[in-house]
Amino acid sequence: MNDRLLALSLDARDPLAPLQRQFTLPDGVIYLDGNSLGALPVATAARVQEAVTGEWGTGLIRSWNTAGWVTLPQRVAAKIARLIGAAADETLVGDSTSVNLYKVLSSAMALVRASGEAGRRVVVSERSNFPTDLYIAQSLCQQHGFTLQLVDPDEIAAHLDERLAVLMLTHVNYRTGRMHDMAGVTRAAHGCGALTIWDLAHSAGAVPVDLNGADADFAVGCGYKYLNGGPGAPAFLWVHRRHLDRMERESLWQPLSGWFGHAAPFEFTPDYRPAAGIARFACGTPPVLSLTALDCGLDTVMAAEPFGGMVALRAKSLQLTTWFLSLVEARCAGHGLALVTPREEEARGSQVSFARTEGGYAIMQALIARGVIGDFRAPDILRFGFTPLYTRFVDVWDAVEHLRQVLESGEWRDARFHHKAAVT
Amino acid sequence: MNDRLLALSLDARDPLAPLQRQFTLPDGVIYLDGNSLGALPVATAARVQEAVTGEWGTGLIRSWNTAGWVTLPQRVAAKIARLIGAAADETLVGDSTSVNLYKVLSSAMALVRASGEAGRRVVVSERSNFPTDLYIAQSLCQQHGFTLQLVDPDEIAAHLDERLAVLMLTHVNYRTGRMHDMAGVTRAAHGCGALTIWDLAHSAGAVPVDLNGADADFAVGCGYKYLNGGPGAPAFLWVHRRHLDRMERESLWQPLSGWFGHAAPFEFTPDYRPAAGIARFACGTPPVLSLTALDCGLDTVMAAEPFGGMVALRAKSLQLTTWFLSLVEARCAGHGLALVTPREEEARGSQVSFARTEGGYAIMQALIARGVIGDFRAPDILRFGFTPLYTRFVDVWDAVEHLRQVLESGEWRDARFHHKAAVT
Repeated sequence: MNDRLLALSLDARDPLAPLQRQFTLPDGVIYLDGNSLGALPVATAARVQEAVTGEWGTGLIRSWNTAGWVTLPQRVAAKIARLIGAAADETLVGDSTSVNLYKVLSSAMALVRASGEAGRRVVVSERSNFPTDLYIAQSLCQQHGFTLQLVDPDEIAAHLDERLAVLMLTHVNYRTGRMHDMAGVTRAAHGCGALTIWDLAHSAGAVPVDLNGADADFAVGCGYKYLNGGPGAPAFLWVHRRHLDRMERESLWQPLSGWFGHAAPFEFTPDYRPAAGIARFACGTPPVLSLTALDCGLDTVMAAEPFGGMVALRAKSLQLTTWFLSLVEARCAGHGLALVTPREEEARGSQVSFARTEGGYAIMQALIARGVIGDFRAPDILRFGFTPLYTRFVDVWDAVEHLRQVLESGEWRDARFHHKAAVT
Repeated sequence: MNDRLLALSLDARDPLAPLQRQFTLPDGVIYLDGNSLGALPVATAARVQEAVTGEWGTGLIRSWNTAGWVTLPQRVAAKIARLIGAAADETLVGDSTSVNLYKVLSSAMALVRASGEAGRRVVVSERSNFPTDLYIAQSLCQQHGFTLQLVDPDEIAAHLDERLAVLMLTHVNYRTGRMHDMAGVTRAAHGCGALTIWDLAHSAGAVPVDLNGADADFAVGCGYKYLNGGPGAPAFLWVHRRHLDRMERESLWQPLSGWFGHAAPFEFTPDYRPAAGIARFACGTPPVLSLTALDCGLDTVMAAEPFGGMVALRAKSLQLTTWFLSLVEARCAGHGLALVTPREEEARGSQVSFARTEGGYAIMQALIARGVIGDFRAPDILRFGFTPLYTRFVDVWDAVEHLRQVLESGEWRDARFHHKAAVT
C-alpha cells in the first residue's frame, strides 16, 4: 500500500470524519489555512440570511427582544467558554482581539498599580508574539509608565522576578506553532507575584485549553480562525473571577467603558456604573450579523462533543501535523525547508511551519495556484494549518505531493508567483 | 379633501418616492425607528449571501486580495465621507462608536497636552448627551487628569473659556432631536482655543453635515441608524487633516494601536509604527460581513444623489417632522404630550419627541402592538424617527391616527403594555 492509499484508509477509519460534512469547501482546494480564516460552515449561509431578512428585515428594532439579540453575546460567549475551560459568566464576546487585549492588559496594569508594589512595572512578552499584541502593549506601557521587555521563548524564565507585572504570551505562536505549557508558565509567573495574559488566537478550537485549570488571569482570542466565525468575526476575552470580584470591590474600570458595559444601559443615566461580573468588559452595541455567523462557527466545534470533543480533535490534529512534517522531511528533503515547529507533540499547536531562506513567498504562491492554500509569514515562514474538523489525511498526502512537485519543478521561480499581494 | 387624502397626494408628488423601493419593510408596519435601527435594503440579503458563500466559502483566505476585502474599509469610508463633508482619506470605518470616540477623544487630549497649556484640562459635554459618550469621556478624563463638566445646552456658551480643552457634543440629541449649529459652535470653541468632537450618530444620512466646512476637529458616528448598515453595524470616525498631520509630525499615537493601523501590517515587525494619515486610527481586523452590509446601506443613501442628495432628503425630512408634530398637537391635544423637539426647523434633526409624565413606555408599547414602531427613552420620552428615504406622508398621518386612538381609548393602560422588555 503506498502512502496515498494509507491516507485514504486513515480517512475511512477516522471517527471524526462525519464532522467534515459541516463545512463547504470548494472543489480542487486543499485548505491548510484554517488557522488564518476558518472554512465556511454549511449552516452559516441560511442562518445569516434569516438574521438579515427575518430578524432585521421583518423584526426590525423589535428583534433585540423577540429574536434575542440582546442575549446573543452571552449565548455565543457560553459556547466559547466550553472550549477554553471557563465559565460562561467569565467570558465575553465582541470587539476585536486587539481591542480586547487593550481592555484586559489595562485592567491587569490597574490591578498591579492598586496593589501598591511600585517596583513592579515590567510587561514581558515574546519578540515573536503576534505583532498586534505587542503594539497594544507598547501603547499601554507608554501610557501607564510600564516597560515592555521582548524576549525569546527560552529567556522567559530569566525574566520572572519581582519587577514583573504582567507576562503576556500567545499560547500557540502564530509563526512557529510552538505551544506553551499554560499551567506551568502561569504557576511560575504567579510564583513571582505577576499576572498572566494568554492570547488564544491559535488555541481556541485547536487545542484543549483549560484557563481555570491553569489558574490563568486573563485571556483573549479570535473568532475567525479555528472557531470558523467568518472574516473579521468578533473576538473574545476572559477574566478570572478573582479579578472580576476585585475590580468590583475596588471600583476599578476597564478603560473602554461603553454603554453595553453599564449596569443599566437602558436607564440612560449620565454616570458610568460598571455592570457586575464580566459584563463590565463590554463596550459598544454588539455586531449582530457577525455574532450570528460566529455562533454557527462555534456550533461546528460543539458538534465534536459527542465524538470526544477537544481531546479527540487534538488527537487527530497531532496525527495530521506529525504525519505532515515527517512526509515533508522525507519527500521534500534537500530543498532547504527547515522545520520551525516543535517536533515534540506537547509543544505543538495545530500548524506546521517551515522556514526557507529564499523564495518562501513564491513557493506558497505556486502552491496556492495549485489549490493548496497555506500562507506565508514574513520574512521566511511557510505556514500550514490543520483543522481536524475538516482536514483529511489525504489532504496531507496530496499537499506534500504538490509541495514536492513545486520544489522539484522549480515552477515557483516563475515571475507571476513573485508579485506581492496586498495581504500575504 | 381630508388629511389622509392630502398625505396620499403628497406621496404621489414626492420626487423621492422611487427611493422607497430600495427597502423591504414588513406589511402592516409603520416604521418610525430608523434613527435606532435603519430598515433593511433590498440589495443587502443577496450581497451578504455572496460575501458568505462566494467570498468566504469559495474564495476563503484569498478573498482578502481577490474579493478586495483589504480595501473594503476604504471603499465604505469613502461613501460615508460624501455624507459628512469630508475627504475619503480623513474618514475611517470600523469598531463601535464608543471605541472610536475613545480613539478621537484620547487623541484630542494628547494634542492639548502636547500644546503645553497646563491649565486647559476641561472637557465639556451635555448632560443629556448619549450616555456612552459620557461614559467614555469619564474614563479618559479619569485616566488623563482632565475634568468632565456636564452642562445643559444653553450653558455651553458660558463654559467656553481658557480652561476648555475639548467640547464634545452630539450634533443631534438622541432624546430631544435638537440640532446644534456645528459651524457656529465650532467657531466659538476655536475662539477660546479648544477642540471639538462631534458625534454624528443621529446626523449622518439624516441631515446635511459639512465637517470641513464647519472646520470641526474630530467626529464619530454610527452605521446602523440612518446609514442602514444593520444591527450593530461598524461605526466611523473622522479627523481633520491638520490633526492627522500634527500627530504624524509629533509622533502622537491614538491608543488603540492595533496591527491594521500599522504602516506595514504584513511585515509583522515587533515595533508599532503608525500608518500615515487616517489609517493610524484603525485597530483590529475589519469585520468583513458587517462592512458588506453597511456598504449596501450606504448605497441607499448614495442613490439619493441624482435626486438632490442630502439637501433633498433634508427638505423632505423637515416636511415629515413638521407635519407630524403639528398633527400630533392638533389631533392628540389634551393627552399630556409635551413637544420636546425644537419647533424651529434649523434646530431640529430628523426625529420628533414628546414627553409625557406618565405612561410613556406603555403608550409606545401599545403603538408597537398596532404596528407603529417608534421607541421610548427613559424616563419619559416618546421618540419618532423619520427617514425620508422610506417614510411616506401617509405613514405620518396613519401614525398620528393610531396615537390618537391609543390615547383616547386608554388601551395603553392594559397590563400587557407595562411589561418591561430587556431593550426599550
